[in-house]
Amino acid sequence: MKALQYRTIGSAPELVDIPMPSPGPGEVLLRVTAAGVCHSDSFIMGLPEDQYVYGLPLTLGHEGAGTVEALGAGVTGLDIGDAVLVYGPWGCGRCYPCSKGEENYCENAAARGIKPPGLGAPGAMAEYLLVDDARHLVPLEDLDPVVSVPLTDAGLTPYHAIKKSLPKLVPGSTAVVIGVGGLGHVAVQILRAITSCTVIAVDAAADKLAHARDVGAHHTVPSGPDAAEQIRTLTGGRGADAVFDFVGIAPTTELGSRTIAVGGDVVIVGVGPGTVAVGFFSTPWESSARAPYWGSRSELIEVIELARSGRITVDVERFSLEQGPEAYRRLHDGTLRGRAVIVP
Amino acid sequence: MKALQYRTIGSAPELVDIPMPSPGPGEVLLRVTAAGVCHSDSFIMGLPEDQYVYGLPLTLGHEGAGTVEALGAGVTGLDIGDAVLVYGPWGCGRCYPCSKGEENYCENAAARGIKPPGLGAPGAMAEYLLVDDARHLVPLEDLDPVVSVPLTDAGLTPYHAIKKSLPKLVPGSTAVVIGVGGLGHVAVQILRAITSCTVIAVDAAADKLAHARDVGAHHTVPSGPDAAEQIRTLTGGRGADAVFDFVGIAPTTELGSRTIAVGGDVVIVGVGPGTVAVGFFSTPWESSARAPYWGSRSELIEVIELARSGRITVDVERFSLEQGPEAYRRLHDGTLRGRAVIVP
Amino acid sequence: MKALQYRTIGSAPELVDIPMPSPGPGEVLLRVTAAGVCHSDSFIMGLPEDQYVYGLPLTLGHEGAGTVEALGAGVTGLDIGDAVLVYGPWGCGRCYPCSKGEENYCENAAARGIKPPGLGAPGAMAEYLLVDDARHLVPLEDLDPVVSVPLTDAGLTPYHAIKKSLPKLVPGSTAVVIGVGGLGHVAVQILRAITSCTVIAVDAAADKLAHARDVGAHHTVPSGPDAAEQIRTLTGGRGADAVFDFVGIAPTTELGSRTIAVGGDVVIVGVGPGTVAVGFFSTPWESSARAPYWGSRSELIEVIELARSGRITVDVERFSLEQGPEAYRRLHDGTLRGRAVIVP
Amino acid sequence: MKALQYRTIGSAPELVDIPMPSPGPGEVLLRVTAAGVCHSDSFIMGLPEDQYVYGLPLTLGHEGAGTVEALGAGVTGLDIGDAVLVYGPWGCGRCYPCSKGEENYCENAAARGIKPPGLGAPGAMAEYLLVDDARHLVPLEDLDPVVSVPLTDAGLTPYHAIKKSLPKLVPGSTAVVIGVGGLGHVAVQILRAITSCTVIAVDAAADKLAHARDVGAHHTVPSGPDAAEQIRTLTGGRGADAVFDFVGIAPTTELGSRTIAVGGDVVIVGVGPGTVAVGFFSTPWESSARAPYWGSRSELIEVIELARSGRITVDVERFSLEQGPEAYRRLHDGTLRGRAVIVP
Repeated sequence: MKALQYRTIGSAPELVDIPMPSPGPGEVLLRVTAAGVCHSDSFIMGLPEDQYVYGLPLTLGHEGAGTVEALGAGVTGLDIGDAVLVYGPWGCGRCYPCSKGEENYCENAAARGIKPPGLGAPGAMAEYLLVDDARHLVPLEDLDPVVSVPLTDAGLTPYHAIKKSLPKLVPGSTAVVIGVGGLGHVAVQILRAITSCTVIAVDAAADKLAHARDVGAHHTVPSGPDAAEQIRTLTGGRGADAVFDFVGIAPTTELGSRTIAVGGDVVIVGVGPGTVAVGFFSTPWESSARAPYWGSRSELIEVIELARSGRITVDVERFSLEQGPEAYRRLHDGTLRGRAVIVP
Repeated sequence: MKALQYRTIGSAPELVDIPMPSPGPGEVLLRVTAAGVCHSDSFIMGLPEDQYVYGLPLTLGHEGAGTVEALGAGVTGLDIGDAVLVYGPWGCGRCYPCSKGEENYCENAAARGIKPPGLGAPGAMAEYLLVDDARHLVPLEDLDPVVSVPLTDAGLTPYHAIKKSLPKLVPGSTAVVIGVGGLGHVAVQILRAITSCTVIAVDAAADKLAHARDVGAHHTVPSGPDAAEQIRTLTGGRGADAVFDFVGIAPTTELGSRTIAVGGDVVIVGVGPGTVAVGFFSTPWESSARAPYWGSRSELIEVIELARSGRITVDVERFSLEQGPEAYRRLHDGTLRGRAVIVP
Repeated sequence: MKALQYRTIGSAPELVDIPMPSPGPGEVLLRVTAAGVCHSDSFIMGLPEDQYVYGLPLTLGHEGAGTVEALGAGVTGLDIGDAVLVYGPWGCGRCYPCSKGEENYCENAAARGIKPPGLGAPGAMAEYLLVDDARHLVPLEDLDPVVSVPLTDAGLTPYHAIKKSLPKLVPGSTAVVIGVGGLGHVAVQILRAITSCTVIAVDAAADKLAHARDVGAHHTVPSGPDAAEQIRTLTGGRGADAVFDFVGIAPTTELGSRTIAVGGDVVIVGVGPGTVAVGFFSTPWESSARAPYWGSRSELIEVIELARSGRITVDVERFSLEQGPEAYRRLHDGTLRGRAVIVP
Repeated sequence: MKALQYRTIGSAPELVDIPMPSPGPGEVLLRVTAAGVCHSDSFIMGLPEDQYVYGLPLTLGHEGAGTVEALGAGVTGLDIGDAVLVYGPWGCGRCYPCSKGEENYCENAAARGIKPPGLGAPGAMAEYLLVDDARHLVPLEDLDPVVSVPLTDAGLTPYHAIKKSLPKLVPGSTAVVIGVGGLGHVAVQILRAITSCTVIAVDAAADKLAHARDVGAHHTVPSGPDAAEQIRTLTGGRGADAVFDFVGIAPTTELGSRTIAVGGDVVIVGVGPGTVAVGFFSTPWESSARAPYWGSRSELIEVIELARSGRITVDVERFSLEQGPEAYRRLHDGTLRGRAVIVP
């Protein structure tokens, strides 16, 4: 079967022909209907050899959708042809976090070498995808797989980030979204759908800010030295009750530090080196900072329900497997609007 | 292998010899080290034929402990000889409640005929037990299986009931435990371990009330017409912030209704016909009533940790498989202190 | 000053002339800008003498808005002319519930004879209103007092009821609102504003159901024997995750009992005799029932913020003090659309 | 009356004679029965003139207990002679945080110049104390004021810090307490009283570690380069689910950063310059850091209930007003065991 693989450190991904997998006991084989292109793929392909830990060759694609093609021995509750989305942050399934469906925080994954598809295990950018356990599949039903596949990361990751701060986003509160890209433009929609807070979007690019307004942001603020002051003004001096930073570099985490309110949350979602220095004399009282990762199984079900109700829509641009390398180039160049999706 | 089975409606369970099972893909075979005897076994064996839905013959035992004897194809993360406890309320593993480990509230179990061991599937009162999925096993490590096996129901059920009311059990609050039997005497200990509330135990039998004091109850109140008034007095007129009713018949649910405080919870855990009539003119403002069932996977891990730290201890009386029928007689006669455990 | 008073058991309220009050230490005198007409006024005016405990004569009006006319000695943080709404369920301010702003559940109010304005203390249907403490005033700023005054009860009461069930109203969940009157039509809007759940409205009157759709209900179901079945169908057989019953009589509480899902909440808000019988064999596992009362101080601030952001709008019909008796007649006859407001 | 005042920048506090205050409308005059000596007093007396913002002369004492001596006009619900504790972080009483009793996070205090007694307003180290509002008084009843007065800060501050992390302190979890002084030794007891977590205490002084064990710590770890490794080992490699840092300097906040588990909380309580740098590559996923301040009104009631039930005991050493300067010297020299209390 055809697959898009990262094969050589520092090179672009390549389309190759590899053997089609067959499902062992408990496994499920999917015919892939869609696979999402993500910044974190670019991030790992940019790592030097001594920091790259995902194995070579690596079939890319940690956002996957498909239809059930074959069931391994012992799998029940699924039928051939069922349309599904793949929950990506696979864990052991049995430790304490996994027992709550928080496999993104599995205590055993590292020790046992359990890795997400596309980030260690063979990913979804291929004609077929092997899924290790039926519990990692969520029914898609009649949703379009191409527009839905980004929900598994670009939807789930901001949803998880927002959900833990939900008790603070009461009526009258304000949330700031920094970075209106693949994840950020979904974050704006999620905030509008499940809270009544005021949403302020921050980005360096004017078209991203326009996009933010299109998807529901109440206010937009261009990145830069005046951003913190503008946010203070928009919040009547109080600051923001939650800042979701989808960039995660020093200028954005600093903006978070400077705009958070007493008791507010700075949530660093972007995979970057920025930090928030929390302390009695450094950040407002009872404000907090954290850096979450991906999301839980129940949260993926919730985010799919949000999409099903029409409350969130991911903007996508389609590419074939053959066009995969181009999709990554476009991502790198910042010329995508919304999310690139590979349709085999 | 030997197994204790309920074979004929209305008869006592019988010791029989049945084929030893072998694990299919994804399944795990345990050599049973302990199996708990529970009131709900007696309850279902007392049902008339038209209400009995658990299949015949039924190998009893929904509380199970064992060591891993054999692994079905595809099972990973377990080794032969591992000591484990069995999570009993098996679900589909994939629906919304199951995605959070709340398989006790699985949305698909009824439709798909998924039943707990000992309550439909073959149970733990046998030399070997077949477990449908490794996710239903929790490491026991060096805990004694005989004193630990009741944790899977007699521990988990009250823990689940208490955990949802935890935010109300602040310092200065009061909890009432009605019925100090197998579950109730664990409930008293859990309340003492994870809250600082005052615990009042209610029972008809003086020896049960003495037992309640031994395991940590601050006050004991004999059942009867004066119980409500005594509880009012002990709470300075406020009433109880939570009532856990492990009996569930009309006199106990009425006691709950009459003693609950404004904003308090009446939690009906006992499998009985009693009800609490909630209404604007019937119960104190913002008080609530609910009837939970068993517990979640993460709660079982938590309750085992409580036992591991020495904070809860289940009193047990040991019986061989051959003595199984006697154990049920003793349970029926109310002459057990604590919990009966079958040790094959 | 002019005031609308209930003076004789069983008679209609009367417009009378009474002395203007003056604020003692810590008190605040308001010039009334609006006072809401509520079903509970009718309820208490319908009580026989032996059950009526609110004192005579009683100046009506527990929903009040005004501007600060005079400050008693020692009051700070308010200026003459400030526009405010009155938090109605006055408590002692110091007991445990009051320390969290939950004065609606004050532990000392009954013993000390502390009563809400219009329900024991002189109410807002007068030219001036005496408020016992500045903490019972919330800034209105530039909101219109006439459309805002119902927020203090018709807004706050459903908000409080909904807020405690918020963790259950995740994406994909369903809420049922029974009774689309003064409170119910606000409940629909609150649910749409702060959750992404599906909202089903139930009422006997076709025009109320049309109103429910206008303010955001996704589905409407006429009261009657088929209502439960229709709600089951609309929820794919699962039932509702929360039922808010703004009527509270036997047919509506029974509908709640029959349509609630596993783990769902039946919330009885309507001041009626209906009850939900909660029990292991009576209601779905882990479902609960409760009957809350009014709301807390912070919830009133939150509900005003919802109005300020344009997310909820109360439909009102204006009446002068002289027209007060007519407003109550119209309320009784069910010919009001939305909420009647007295504008002195 | 006699009062202990800070009168000159850089000098020791002095005993002086000042006029006795009388209560205005809404105010309450207490005869002081006890006043606690706190590190933060030393901290502010150590500030250079350009950073000192508390006014001169300043009557010290933000931990206060007393009996009601006189009531200002309009005060109800209190009787002459009532024994009370003083809630210290006075706020406006009306803003959003204050409406929930979180006056420690009042939005208006700074702008209106509202300051706690002993930290701007005249404090409790005098024969009489003027309290601005009856809502700042909590009944002490028959508790000894001398051992109870530290609850208002040394009890309330750790209680508030712990309470927000309570959902993470499930059975099987671990909490680390850094610094076993006036607040830390209460923190250990609170953790033991309201959770079942394992408590590890860290301090540089051997006698403080012995004290920690006396009051309930399961393990003690001496400060130093090996502390992080020892905590890792004690937690089986997982790290701590919550770290409460009562020192707040670089070595302790770094210890917090290095020992926190995935999803854990670092809580900086000590008034020091240390910070935790939170980021995707800096701290474990979903771990958070925050620096809270004092506590809320309801939390003070809860902490007093803990003391009333005998679950927490503050070790105190008594001093007269005349001995006040000596108490501060002893505090500075680190020769106090527990908390110094002034008894006028």
